[in-house]
Amino acid sequence: MDGMWADLLPVGRDGATGGYRRHAWTPADLACREWFAAEAARRGLDLVVDRNGNQWAWWGDPDADGPGVVAGSHLDSVPDGGAYDGPLGVVSAFAALDRLRDRGLVPGRPLAVASFTDEEGARFGIACAGSRLLTGALDADRARNLTDSDGTTLADAMRSAGHDPTHLGRDDETLRRVGTLVELHVEQGRALVDVGAPVGVASTIWPHGRWLLDLAGEANHAGTTRLEDRDDPMLRLAAAVLAAREAAIEHGAVATIGRVAVAPNGTNAIPSRVRAWLDARGAVEADVRAVVAEVAAAAAVDAVEESWTAEVAFDATLRDRLTGLLGGVPVLATAAGHDAGILAAAGVEAAMLFVRNPTGVSHSPAEHAEVDDCHAGVDALATVLAHLTAARP
Amino acid sequence: MDGMWADLLPVGRDGATGGYRRHAWTPADLACREWFAAEAARRGLDLVVDRNGNQWAWWGDPDADGPGVVAGSHLDSVPDGGAYDGPLGVVSAFAALDRLRDRGLVPGRPLAVASFTDEEGARFGIACAGSRLLTGALDADRARNLTDSDGTTLADAMRSAGHDPTHLGRDDETLRRVGTLVELHVEQGRALVDVGAPVGVASTIWPHGRWLLDLAGEANHAGTTRLEDRDDPMLRLAAAVLAAREAAIEHGAVATIGRVAVAPNGTNAIPSRVRAWLDARGAVEADVRAVVAEVAAAAAVDAVEESWTAEVAFDATLRDRLTGLLGGVPVLATAAGHDAGILAAAGVEAAMLFVRNPTGVSHSPAEHAEVDDCHAGVDALATVLAHLTAARP
Repeated sequence: MDGMWADLLPVGRDGATGGYRRHAWTPADLACREWFAAEAARRGLDLVVDRNGNQWAWWGDPDADGPGVVAGSHLDSVPDGGAYDGPLGVVSAFAALDRLRDRGLVPGRPLAVASFTDEEGARFGIACAGSRLLTGALDADRARNLTDSDGTTLADAMRSAGHDPTHLGRDDETLRRVGTLVELHVEQGRALVDVGAPVGVASTIWPHGRWLLDLAGEANHAGTTRLEDRDDPMLRLAAAVLAAREAAIEHGAVATIGRVAVAPNGTNAIPSRVRAWLDARGAVEADVRAVVAEVAAAAAVDAVEESWTAEVAFDATLRDRLTGLLGGVPVLATAAGHDAGILAAAGVEAAMLFVRNPTGVSHSPAEHAEVDDCHAGVDALATVLAHLTAARP
Repeated sequence: MDGMWADLLPVGRDGATGGYRRHAWTPADLACREWFAAEAARRGLDLVVDRNGNQWAWWGDPDADGPGVVAGSHLDSVPDGGAYDGPLGVVSAFAALDRLRDRGLVPGRPLAVASFTDEEGARFGIACAGSRLLTGALDADRARNLTDSDGTTLADAMRSAGHDPTHLGRDDETLRRVGTLVELHVEQGRALVDVGAPVGVASTIWPHGRWLLDLAGEANHAGTTRLEDRDDPMLRLAAAVLAAREAAIEHGAVATIGRVAVAPNGTNAIPSRVRAWLDARGAVEADVRAVVAEVAAAAAVDAVEESWTAEVAFDATLRDRLTGLLGGVPVLATAAGHDAGILAAAGVEAAMLFVRNPTGVSHSPAEHAEVDDCHAGVDALATVLAHLTAARP
C-alpha cells in the first residue's frame, strides 16, 4: 500500500498549497488514470475503460462468471483537495486484493477494483458525473455540453484526452457486471473520532444538491456612479450568503456558497454579473428545499438546479452483514455524495466503509488519516471482499 | 480622427462581451503602444519612452525650448472596459495637434501627445502606476514586486515586453519637460448630460483609494462540516459588502467591492481564503476613511491600503482660463482618478476636459460618447493647445 501511495502522492499536487488539482480529463487526471492502468497491469488484471470513462480492473471474467464484487472509489479531486478523498478507496482496494492473493484466496466470484471518473465535478460542475452517466442519472447530451471555466465542453475535454464521448450514457453491459459495490472512503466528519473507532459502515447519504445563482447587474465605474444609479449584483450575493447560513440553522441543514465567479472582476468596476453556486444538504429533503428557496428569495433570483441526489439508504441487509463481520463497527450517515450512493440509487447492492479522519477536515490540503487507520481500513475491506467473493449470491 | 479610432478599435477587444482587456504589458497593451509609436512616426514627432514606460510624442524640443505643453491620457483598460476611457484622450490629442498643423500654426512652445502606462491598474492593482512612478508617488521597488493574478511580477512583465524595469522611479528629466498637462477624458457620470453641454472642465478629483480585505478561513467539506465547526470567510465577505453600501450612504461617499478572489473556489468546499478589494471615494477624506474603517470592522480584518490619492484641486487659474476660452463651459468635480491628477498633486500645472457621456456608464462595454461630442472635444482641446502653446509662461 505504501508504495502505491508514494507513487500517487505527487500527481497534480500544487507546490504552494500542498493541495491537489486532479480535475477530470486534465493532465493530472490522466496521470492518475495511467497510474491505475499500471497497477492493474502489474497484477495481471483485465483493464476495462467503460463508455463513460470509468476504469475497472477485473480479476476473473464478470461476463462469464459474474456478476462480480467491486471495490473502488475515485482519483480526481476538488480544487486544493486532500490526498485521501477518493484515492484512499482505490489504493485500499488494490491493497485488499493483494492481501487476498497473499493468503492464497481464489475468489468464488470475479473481483474488480474500480475508479469512477469525475466524482468531484470540480471542472464541469456535476458531482459523480462518471457514475451518474453509467446509471443514466445524468443525460449524455447534457453531459457532453457541460463547460469548464474556460468554455471547454466535457465532450472536447474527453476528446483531447483520447476518450471518445460519442457513446456516453447508461451502460447496462457494465452495470450487469457489478453484483456488489463496496466503496471505502476517508470520513469527512468526526463521527468515528467521537466514538474512538478506526472504521465504520455507512447507513445513508443525506439528500443534497447544487444550485446556480446567476445574478445579473450593470457594469459601471466604481467611483463615478451614484449609489442610487447602481445595479450591483455583489449586494445580492451578500444577501444570499447570509441567507444560506440563516436558513441552514433554521432548518437543521447545511448550506454553503464556496464558489463565486465575478465579471469583470475589476477593483474599480461595479460587476456586470456574479455567479454563485449553492451547495445544500440535510437529513430531510423538505428542509433542503426550504433552504434553497430562502436563499433564492434573498438573492431575488431563480436557483437553477445543477444536480440533485435524493436520500440514499444503503442496502440494510448488506450493511448489517458487514457491521457484524467487522465486529460491530459504528454505523453512520454522511452528508457527502459518493459514487456508491449513485449506484445504490440505481438499484445496485452497495455499501461503504469509512476510515477515521482525526480532524474531520476534508476538501482541504489539511485532510488526513493516520497510517494505522488506513491499514485498518484495508484489513476491513479485505475481510469484506473475502466474504462477498466466497459465496455467490 | 475617425481613421485612428478605427485602427485602435479592434485591439484587445473581447469577441463575446465587446469589452476591452488592454491590461498593462500584455500583447493587447503592446499593440496599443505600437499604434501610438506609429501615429507619432506618421507625424514626424519624436517618440520618447520614459524610464517608467510612459510614451511621449514631441513636436519640438522640450529640453532646448521647454517646458512644453502635453495633451494625453492612457490606452490601457479595466477588464471588459469601454472603448473611450483613456483612448479618447490620446486620439483627441493627436487629432487636435493635426488641426493646429492644418491651420498652419507654429507653436511657441514644444507640444507633445502622451500616453501614460497602466492607468487602470487592472493587472497589478495600482491605478495610475505609470504616472505615480514618474512623480515618485509609487515606490520603484514596491512596483517591481507587484504581482498579477498569475503571480507574474510587474518587473518580469515589463522585461517580457522588452522594457527594462531597472530604472523605474521618479524621473525629473521627464517631469521638467512638462510645463502644462491637459488630459481630455470621456465623462464617467452624467453631469454634462444633466446640463446639456458636450464639454466640461475639471475642478477637483475626490480623494479615493483601494484596500485589500484578506479574509482567512478554514477549507473544509461543504457537506460534512457542521455549521458550528466552520470558519467560512465568505460570511465575512458578505458582511463587508453590505457594510460598504451602508457606510457609503451614511457618509455621503461611494464604496464598491467589485473584485473577489476565492480559494479554492469549489462548489463543495468551504473557502480557505477570500480576498476582496474595496474601492472607496468621497468628497471629504474623513468620510472615505470612516467608510473603510466600518467595512474593515464588519469583516473583522485590517483593510490593507493598496493605493491612496488625496483630493486633487486642479490649478484654479488655468481652470478659469480654459473655462473662459471655451465660452463658459461647465466646471465639474469627479470621483475618478486620472494621470492628470497624479501630476497635479506633484505640482505640475494640469487641467482636464471632459466629453459628455450620454448614459454616464463607464468601465463597461456599454460606455459611449456621441461622434459629434468627440469632435467637440477635439475642437476644445485644439483651442486650449493653441492658447497654451502661443504664449510662453
